[in-house]
Amino acid sequence: MTKPTSLSDFRFDPESEGDDYVDVQFVAIEIARLLAEGDSESVRAFLEGQELADVAAYLEELDTEPAFQAMRLLSLHDQAEMIGYLRPASQVVIATQMGRRELAALMTAMSHDERADLFKRLDEEAQEALLPALSKAEREDLRRLSSYEESTVGSVMTSDYATLKPEMTAPQAMEALRAQALEAETVYTAYIIDDAHHLLGVLDLRDLLIARPRQKVADLMDTEPVWIRAEAEQEEAAKLIARYDLIALPVLDTDNRLVGIVTQDDAMDVAESEVTEDFYKGSLVNPLETSVADATITMLYKARIYWLVLLVFGNIFSGAGIAYFEDTIAAHLALLFFLPLLIASGGNAGTQSATLMVRALATGDVRISDFGQLLGRELVIALALGLTMAVAVATIGVWRGGPEIALVVSLAMVSIVIMGALFGMSLPFLFQRLGRDPATAAGPLVTSVADILGVLIYFGIASVLLDI
Amino acid sequence: MTKPTSLSDFRFDPESEGDDYVDVQFVAIEIARLLAEGDSESVRAFLEGQELADVAAYLEELDTEPAFQAMRLLSLHDQAEMIGYLRPASQVVIATQMGRRELAALMTAMSHDERADLFKRLDEEAQEALLPALSKAEREDLRRLSSYEESTVGSVMTSDYATLKPEMTAPQAMEALRAQALEAETVYTAYIIDDAHHLLGVLDLRDLLIARPRQKVADLMDTEPVWIRAEAEQEEAAKLIARYDLIALPVLDTDNRLVGIVTQDDAMDVAESEVTEDFYKGSLVNPLETSVADATITMLYKARIYWLVLLVFGNIFSGAGIAYFEDTIAAHLALLFFLPLLIASGGNAGTQSATLMVRALATGDVRISDFGQLLGRELVIALALGLTMAVAVATIGVWRGGPEIALVVSLAMVSIVIMGALFGMSLPFLFQRLGRDPATAAGPLVTSVADILGVLIYFGIASVLLDI
Repeated sequence: MTKPTSLSDFRFDPESEGDDYVDVQFVAIEIARLLAEGDSESVRAFLEGQELADVAAYLEELDTEPAFQAMRLLSLHDQAEMIGYLRPASQVVIATQMGRRELAALMTAMSHDERADLFKRLDEEAQEALLPALSKAEREDLRRLSSYEESTVGSVMTSDYATLKPEMTAPQAMEALRAQALEAETVYTAYIIDDAHHLLGVLDLRDLLIARPRQKVADLMDTEPVWIRAEAEQEEAAKLIARYDLIALPVLDTDNRLVGIVTQDDAMDVAESEVTEDFYKGSLVNPLETSVADATITMLYKARIYWLVLLVFGNIFSGAGIAYFEDTIAAHLALLFFLPLLIASGGNAGTQSATLMVRALATGDVRISDFGQLLGRELVIALALGLTMAVAVATIGVWRGGPEIALVVSLAMVSIVIMGALFGMSLPFLFQRLGRDPATAAGPLVTSVADILGVLIYFGIASVLLDI
Repeated sequence: MTKPTSLSDFRFDPESEGDDYVDVQFVAIEIARLLAEGDSESVRAFLEGQELADVAAYLEELDTEPAFQAMRLLSLHDQAEMIGYLRPASQVVIATQMGRRELAALMTAMSHDERADLFKRLDEEAQEALLPALSKAEREDLRRLSSYEESTVGSVMTSDYATLKPEMTAPQAMEALRAQALEAETVYTAYIIDDAHHLLGVLDLRDLLIARPRQKVADLMDTEPVWIRAEAEQEEAAKLIARYDLIALPVLDTDNRLVGIVTQDDAMDVAESEVTEDFYKGSLVNPLETSVADATITMLYKARIYWLVLLVFGNIFSGAGIAYFEDTIAAHLALLFFLPLLIASGGNAGTQSATLMVRALATGDVRISDFGQLLGRELVIALALGLTMAVAVATIGVWRGGPEIALVVSLAMVSIVIMGALFGMSLPFLFQRLGRDPATAAGPLVTSVADILGVLIYFGIASVLLDI
């Protein structure tokens, strides 16, 4: 795209370069300049044409004072929606700078899940100051939504869902949704509850739209909807929403009362944070509680030292294996040339198998009961891989150490690759069977064990064949 | 949950064990039994109370004949929706077994993106047989949707979106949506187009619901909506939908005409397949074009042999490094004990740094411009990690080979960990800068280079300190 030269040229452009759909830096500088010149009308006019997610991105780049000024140019409703797009830390900065009444008004307009998240992040003093400025219903809602543990469905659900009564006719229901449209997180799915808040059914607005005027909600609603408990893992909610293509998933307490909903966009956020978690799970880094950019040196040190030290102990066994065969090695120093290559190949083949199985188990492509069949297939593949590699190293073996060394090295290669592959594919199944996450089996454990076995197999074969 | 003993006890239960929300095997066996007994009414009654995603899961477990019987118990509308939940291979099996007219009726009722996907998978003969049974408009729609390349937005978009005209009043627009509600993929977002199909604006049903009766669509719609080109990468569509919390994203051709929409649930599917792709990207396995379960032995061999052989050549350098220091090693065989441990630690520290940076770059937590600052922080962390590890190995060093060996090993450890960490964190930035995917930098390349440098540093230090 051609660079805009003023805010009035500025448009959403998906064809702009890189991952930023908007030139955030440019806009932020322009906003700051206009505000400094006292031209807040131009800024207001510009912001009104922008998506609130982008407005939040601009504010992130501004200093606190101009960010405040710019934010106050939005309507209260837009402010409340925009703040949900800010980073948690920025939300807290804004909230703590605001007057008690102003913050209370903003939080009243916010969606219930986002304001509960913000409330949890305020320090105790700020929380205590805020509560009296809120209505009783809002205080209770805040306390209730904040009470669920992190990573549960309750911690991501929202309580501003739209409700209908079973005896309403279609036009009455439509009118009821109209009345709730501004407040509710979504009106595209409505929840039918009795006086004790038990969930009776779910009705999509689409079905209401095409209903005949005489039809009642009770006859239109789905009486066996998909639902989830507030105490369940949030990842489960994301899975259900994806599996059943839901707009929102109702959340029930243990008495089957409706306590909230999880919407599809929240599910996408949950899915992304689960991906990050899974990403670290198969790696050598323990999950961080914050982003890498915000993490302190101590946090990063702690997240990393565990695996590094643990793997040192794993490698001591490899070292001990080598030490055990010191005489063989001293007699045939040419063997050392192939040591890194053979050890690494076993670990690599094992990591490949583990990677494939971890992902296949996670997506449901493969089940525990498929193990036997997959093991047979893996043996064939590993044999083919091992033979290919053996041919490659045998050639180098002849050149570096003669036919005897070549024989040892190629025999070791086939054995090590097969061993690594079978072990690498079995471990995720074992973990799944034991009720542990297969992803944690993928990385370091496979490599460490393959290393040790690789040393033993290589020098074992060498000592038998060469020391006769 | 207590196991159901008959289909009538069977309910959706998110608290059932494992990842399966429904006991698919049990239900499939029951369905087959009832159908064999000729009791299709019980099966129909059961299926009507089930989510179509679950019905699809049952049919997957049945043989072709009973699966067909069960499917025909659903209404055509439900059949058309259910088939979208079947695996692609099963869809083709069903489609090829159907009569031409029956298949044409089913495909007419299917959502446009799903029928285009199915059509693409049929062999040429089946395609040619099917086309004459479809209406002209449908033939053209199929041809157009099938013409986009895999992985583009065009290949995942659907053409059954709801449209409105700008001059409609709010009640007229509501009536227009009612008329399109059965056919359209979603009515929760409507697209306002002119006669040449140019996109004029977007209107959410929620805003229409709360509009005053006199208001016109032209005054209610968002005239600067977020959109994407049909030729863009499908991943970009998923990102836009997540960023802007959209229900659906309009897709424009190069003449700015509306050609389709991508819905939020399609975006979730795209996001999942991108995760799988990213998962393999940082691994030693080239991406497979099919699921692991369906892949042939040859496909898996090809996906794996590339990295295995490539890394053999990487490790030859390590081997050559060892061979270069053969004399030092022969004089101090105790050094060998620490070889696996030191080499692995460099690779491990490097992999950790790379993992953290790859994820942080992917999520946008960190930008290229942060490199200098992060490098300084990494140096401090690596020094701390290296010193911790050095203390650990020095103790073993004294025990295994005396104070001189301990000195060599601990000096080598600090140097190798720092070198590995700095290299591991720099590589993803370098890849990003060069416009390549940082994820591909994470795994094998970091480890291989760290291995080679580790050998050189270790024996380099040893030869200087011990051979004096």
